[in-house]
Amino acid sequence: MRIRYGMVGGGPGAFIGPIHRMAAALDGEYELVAGAFSADPEKSRETGRALGLDAARIYDSYEAMAAEEAARPAEERIEIVTIVTPNHLHHPVAKTFLERGIHVVCDKPLATTIEDAEELCRIAMERDLIFAVTYNYTGYPMVKEARDRVRTGDLGTLRKVVVEYSQGWLSTLLEAEGQKQAEWRGDPERAGISSALADIGSHAYDIVRYVTGLGTRRLFADLGTVVEGRRMEDDATVLLDLDGGVRGLLFASQIATGERNHLRLRVYGSEGALDWSQENPNRLRLVAVDGSERILYRGAGTRSEAAQSHTRLPSGHPEGFIEAFANVYRNVASAVRSAGDEARGPRADFPTVQDGAHGVHFIHHAVDSHGAGRWIDAAYSPPG
Amino acid sequence: MRIRYGMVGGGPGAFIGPIHRMAAALDGEYELVAGAFSADPEKSRETGRALGLDAARIYDSYEAMAAEEAARPAEERIEIVTIVTPNHLHHPVAKTFLERGIHVVCDKPLATTIEDAEELCRIAMERDLIFAVTYNYTGYPMVKEARDRVRTGDLGTLRKVVVEYSQGWLSTLLEAEGQKQAEWRGDPERAGISSALADIGSHAYDIVRYVTGLGTRRLFADLGTVVEGRRMEDDATVLLDLDGGVRGLLFASQIATGERNHLRLRVYGSEGALDWSQENPNRLRLVAVDGSERILYRGAGTRSEAAQSHTRLPSGHPEGFIEAFANVYRNVASAVRSAGDEARGPRADFPTVQDGAHGVHFIHHAVDSHGAGRWIDAAYSPPG
Amino acid sequence: MRIRYGMVGGGPGAFIGPIHRMAAALDGEYELVAGAFSADPEKSRETGRALGLDAARIYDSYEAMAAEEAARPAEERIEIVTIVTPNHLHHPVAKTFLERGIHVVCDKPLATTIEDAEELCRIAMERDLIFAVTYNYTGYPMVKEARDRVRTGDLGTLRKVVVEYSQGWLSTLLEAEGQKQAEWRGDPERAGISSALADIGSHAYDIVRYVTGLGTRRLFADLGTVVEGRRMEDDATVLLDLDGGVRGLLFASQIATGERNHLRLRVYGSEGALDWSQENPNRLRLVAVDGSERILYRGAGTRSEAAQSHTRLPSGHPEGFIEAFANVYRNVASAVRSAGDEARGPRADFPTVQDGAHGVHFIHHAVDSHGAGRWIDAAYSPPG
Amino acid sequence: MRIRYGMVGGGPGAFIGPIHRMAAALDGEYELVAGAFSADPEKSRETGRALGLDAARIYDSYEAMAAEEAARPAEERIEIVTIVTPNHLHHPVAKTFLERGIHVVCDKPLATTIEDAEELCRIAMERDLIFAVTYNYTGYPMVKEARDRVRTGDLGTLRKVVVEYSQGWLSTLLEAEGQKQAEWRGDPERAGISSALADIGSHAYDIVRYVTGLGTRRLFADLGTVVEGRRMEDDATVLLDLDGGVRGLLFASQIATGERNHLRLRVYGSEGALDWSQENPNRLRLVAVDGSERILYRGAGTRSEAAQSHTRLPSGHPEGFIEAFANVYRNVASAVRSAGDEARGPRADFPTVQDGAHGVHFIHHAVDSHGAGRWIDAAYSPPG
Repeated sequence: MRIRYGMVGGGPGAFIGPIHRMAAALDGEYELVAGAFSADPEKSRETGRALGLDAARIYDSYEAMAAEEAARPAEERIEIVTIVTPNHLHHPVAKTFLERGIHVVCDKPLATTIEDAEELCRIAMERDLIFAVTYNYTGYPMVKEARDRVRTGDLGTLRKVVVEYSQGWLSTLLEAEGQKQAEWRGDPERAGISSALADIGSHAYDIVRYVTGLGTRRLFADLGTVVEGRRMEDDATVLLDLDGGVRGLLFASQIATGERNHLRLRVYGSEGALDWSQENPNRLRLVAVDGSERILYRGAGTRSEAAQSHTRLPSGHPEGFIEAFANVYRNVASAVRSAGDEARGPRADFPTVQDGAHGVHFIHHAVDSHGAGRWIDAAYSPPG
Repeated sequence: MRIRYGMVGGGPGAFIGPIHRMAAALDGEYELVAGAFSADPEKSRETGRALGLDAARIYDSYEAMAAEEAARPAEERIEIVTIVTPNHLHHPVAKTFLERGIHVVCDKPLATTIEDAEELCRIAMERDLIFAVTYNYTGYPMVKEARDRVRTGDLGTLRKVVVEYSQGWLSTLLEAEGQKQAEWRGDPERAGISSALADIGSHAYDIVRYVTGLGTRRLFADLGTVVEGRRMEDDATVLLDLDGGVRGLLFASQIATGERNHLRLRVYGSEGALDWSQENPNRLRLVAVDGSERILYRGAGTRSEAAQSHTRLPSGHPEGFIEAFANVYRNVASAVRSAGDEARGPRADFPTVQDGAHGVHFIHHAVDSHGAGRWIDAAYSPPG
Repeated sequence: MRIRYGMVGGGPGAFIGPIHRMAAALDGEYELVAGAFSADPEKSRETGRALGLDAARIYDSYEAMAAEEAARPAEERIEIVTIVTPNHLHHPVAKTFLERGIHVVCDKPLATTIEDAEELCRIAMERDLIFAVTYNYTGYPMVKEARDRVRTGDLGTLRKVVVEYSQGWLSTLLEAEGQKQAEWRGDPERAGISSALADIGSHAYDIVRYVTGLGTRRLFADLGTVVEGRRMEDDATVLLDLDGGVRGLLFASQIATGERNHLRLRVYGSEGALDWSQENPNRLRLVAVDGSERILYRGAGTRSEAAQSHTRLPSGHPEGFIEAFANVYRNVASAVRSAGDEARGPRADFPTVQDGAHGVHFIHHAVDSHGAGRWIDAAYSPPG
Repeated sequence: MRIRYGMVGGGPGAFIGPIHRMAAALDGEYELVAGAFSADPEKSRETGRALGLDAARIYDSYEAMAAEEAARPAEERIEIVTIVTPNHLHHPVAKTFLERGIHVVCDKPLATTIEDAEELCRIAMERDLIFAVTYNYTGYPMVKEARDRVRTGDLGTLRKVVVEYSQGWLSTLLEAEGQKQAEWRGDPERAGISSALADIGSHAYDIVRYVTGLGTRRLFADLGTVVEGRRMEDDATVLLDLDGGVRGLLFASQIATGERNHLRLRVYGSEGALDWSQENPNRLRLVAVDGSERILYRGAGTRSEAAQSHTRLPSGHPEGFIEAFANVYRNVASAVRSAGDEARGPRADFPTVQDGAHGVHFIHHAVDSHGAGRWIDAAYSPPG
């Protein structure tokens, strides 16, 4: 049986909503049965109809959706909700559904304040509900292979991490031109206190945590607003003092002209290094101390069970963004199916509400460091 | 409403069946409602159940499936069947469904003889049924951009085409080790007269035809069986004398050790050249006469309507094999929906039964040329 | 007539000395006629003999060399001296030869203190002598093309610069293992106050200045010593506040395991970006606002006179490190030949003693910023 | 002591002459002391003067040069002559100098007929003179590493070789526009019976022989003249039946629009494959059976003594075309210095007159096969 899910957000002009729908569809594990796709009821209905939903389950508001779905018989109501709204709604929507006992998949950043993020951690924990935050880049098989290589010691003692997330799509004041995505992301009322860090820097931060397992002790951030008229930073550099003194450098930009979606992670250890780039995701470069390289490909030379079980195609048949995103959904499905079992195993491999809280904490502390012009403490452990 | 489809083949251990299912699922255009997944009824049922099918529509044979589905009410029966069996069954299965008035998606090569291929062309034409052959590589947006660049004259007069399809997976006598994919592909009873050309060379040939629009006047082929014990060729080089004297070189190998799935097309014209590689499919290299290059990416710098309408994600968010395959399915869906309309427009952009016949013709003439040790005529125009 | 030159340093086990000799030899503009190749007279003689020098012009010390060469007839004595000693000797050796009226080519960093660097600027200026500092990476034709593209406005208003110089050769405590190069570079007595910044970071800084023409207003540096037992920093990140508010990020490492000699410069402007990498030096990537790229190659698509005049081979015939180094020598030769002319033209295209002083200033201010843990002013204009 | 050499050809407008001079200069092993640089005495003198030669040793003809140099005292006369004329002069010039007892470095192709080539083999052998033919691409360290990997069995049993040499510089009828290089190469009187094969195909053939050690049993060639008005083939495909049944594919083009100088060699064996590309010469890709890759770089991960001894710089400091060319000269120098020694060791690592004869034989048999439209025998063993 497919898992019944609903969606909040993702109406006309949305970017990430359709991606969630394709990711959920790919492996045949989910069926979309309900939605409140827009704050505008007409737009919500339009989207719901186009998706072939039962008219009775296309809602005018997320509150109505939560209430009415929860009132349906157990075998009919949505088991999980996907939240793909602007950032400021993540917290109220997620809280509403959690309180109805419904699992959550929420886009990042999890919330616009640390307090809100932590509240969601606590509710999910208390209710024993599944809460995934779509730091989707860790869904790539070769990122999982990278993590495995670090964990099994192939790189020796870690020494340095360089992570970059460069985009150029905000090289102009796109938010003033009516582009929907740019508009809300550039509005602090809806996006929160940050643009570049919230939208992409937090992905970069998450992938560092995922692959290295390291937390941050201190950080120094320098934020800049390059495009005149923009209300938040569009370029950021953050120095990270990671656990054990590992040196970290994170830089993210929305004004790196011409860069498409360049997320790249390099990890240097005493015995070797690794290098992964999102625009060429089927490939993982391992560099030996002598400067020679070993190139692994998805399906060719990977060693980890994680890489092998998160792939659908033989090597040389490229998998991409949707497939990685679908890996998050597939693992969530597995967790949903085993939810409530006495014997359910170790936590499934997907980003959780705690990972979401780490991202929010990072964003806020980077903003604080920039304001202070100095290194600040950044150690953190979210509830749960 | 989703299009109801059935599947023949694609049972346990299948490679291409699950890909067809993911491709059909991705855009939410299709619903799998029936299947005869294996010649072994138990395996067929096992697969059908795992896919959540109604038990009544899991069949023991394709003949039963065709008969019983055709007997169902129009609003319930399958509209189209996907054929993912070994090659020798393509023709009988396709013929059976066509004769019941059911559209067909069939894997390549279309048939094991030219006569069979042409019969399918004729039946599809007489019945006015849609018949797609999954030369899926032409589904990539950047291949469509390449075609557009050729057609709009960016390359000037075409002069030379080099296409390569190199794999290494048959570097050992895998068919003797019980590997299901290798087993039937290495058996002339099931695969037909060719291995490397049938399995991959015909893809290479199709992409040349798609991008350049050129037919072949003459060809010279040299086939080799490199791995001892193999019953068909595992390495092939074919020189093509294309329309207008354009020089063509096609080489395909299953024993190119370590090559994953390296399909690469280069087209040289008097005003420039283009270069596309399947393992990096989001990229198209255009080379200027002066040796500088322009690199287009899916979503970045493409100009053709075709490239832009066959993509789902912004640039920098990689799309892969499944997405390209899904483009074939999406275009077939569009054709199915408009089938029978008086006013249906120009033929949709997917490989047809005629393209399939071209592939079969190519395979057979390459084998003939090799046998004769000389150039042979290869001009061809299939029925329809 | 070839220019007669002498060399100080470059004896047995030297790395950079032989490179200078090959660079000087390549275009047939120079003839090596004298040398003090080592502080050890026996080693000096050994090297001089192997190079086929007249025994009378192989010296035991640089002081003797300066004195005796200056005493030779004008048509016989060296016109220019190349200094390839450890850093602490650059200043005394250069000063000695300048005071004898002999032109200088000196390796970088120019000196171990700002005062020494500035003194050399002043002497060279007063004596009207040529003084080149071998920031050799700006000798690459594609770096010159990059500069030209910036200057002619192809990139619009500059916004951001990312420069990286990553090496892994000091991933172990090589200086404790008797490796000559590591030994002196790891010894503050001979190398000065810095390792990573002095040895490679200053190259990165120079290439930024060369290509963008921008000075630095303020900087923030974070230096680290990763390998235990090392006496200076082996990893450095420096944030640059460049003229006009252009955001700069420079990072340099000697412990980036497996990195060979990865110097990469990216410059982002309002109208486009450029990207050049030293390990693939014949190539310059220009990125358009729409995310498509134009790849220029040495000899293919370059537009600047500078790129075209600093190359020896047609496109596709790779030029490398030595050729770029030779470009410095060739331009110095041209300056030497026109030295003293009333009418000598605009300053030749090679790094000067002032560029050397900029490097020294940068190193010292980065060290200061790191010590202070804050941004510091870094505007600078050396004498001359 | 430097080796004294003379040059025939290489006057104004020459391409390869200056390259030979730079290659000879790089390591300080040679001194140019004589030359007949052009059939036009004035041009010869102009070039010789610009190179700083003694006027008495700038000759009006190669005959005069051979006679007069041979008449000089042994410690003064040239020891070796470099021949960089159009192809039709290679044989007469080489023969003339050999008969005076002077060693020879000659550009390729060695001669315009097989008979001439074989005569040179015989004379060199009888006179015990060194005769190098500048198939310079085998001078690259990573080509030497490739050969070593094949010889030590890393690839297992060889199965297939694909070599390509694509250029686009003759995409127009350049020879009609007064371009000197194109002019003589396009004139059968001066170039011989072939253009693409003679100029570049023979390089591709040589590198196959060098790396694999395999001879050719039979070949099938298809030659084409794509640009109207051209007198010889500008595009060629040659199928090679190599020793032991190894399948070979060689294609060379001068009309592959936009290709710069794309020489690429792939060798597939039962245990792995290798891939080298001239435009990225510091890199060698080794592919494992599982599809993962190991990338070696000059100075990083190479294993062969040959790769290590033919390099001047640490890894990451690119070496290029001139350095590879210089390796040929350096090895010839070593042979010259030991010529006549009783105890001189195994033949040095440079392409010989026999390699030159192999190239000529290949060109002629390819032309013959094309004419016949069939496979022809091509086994060959030149004199000596």
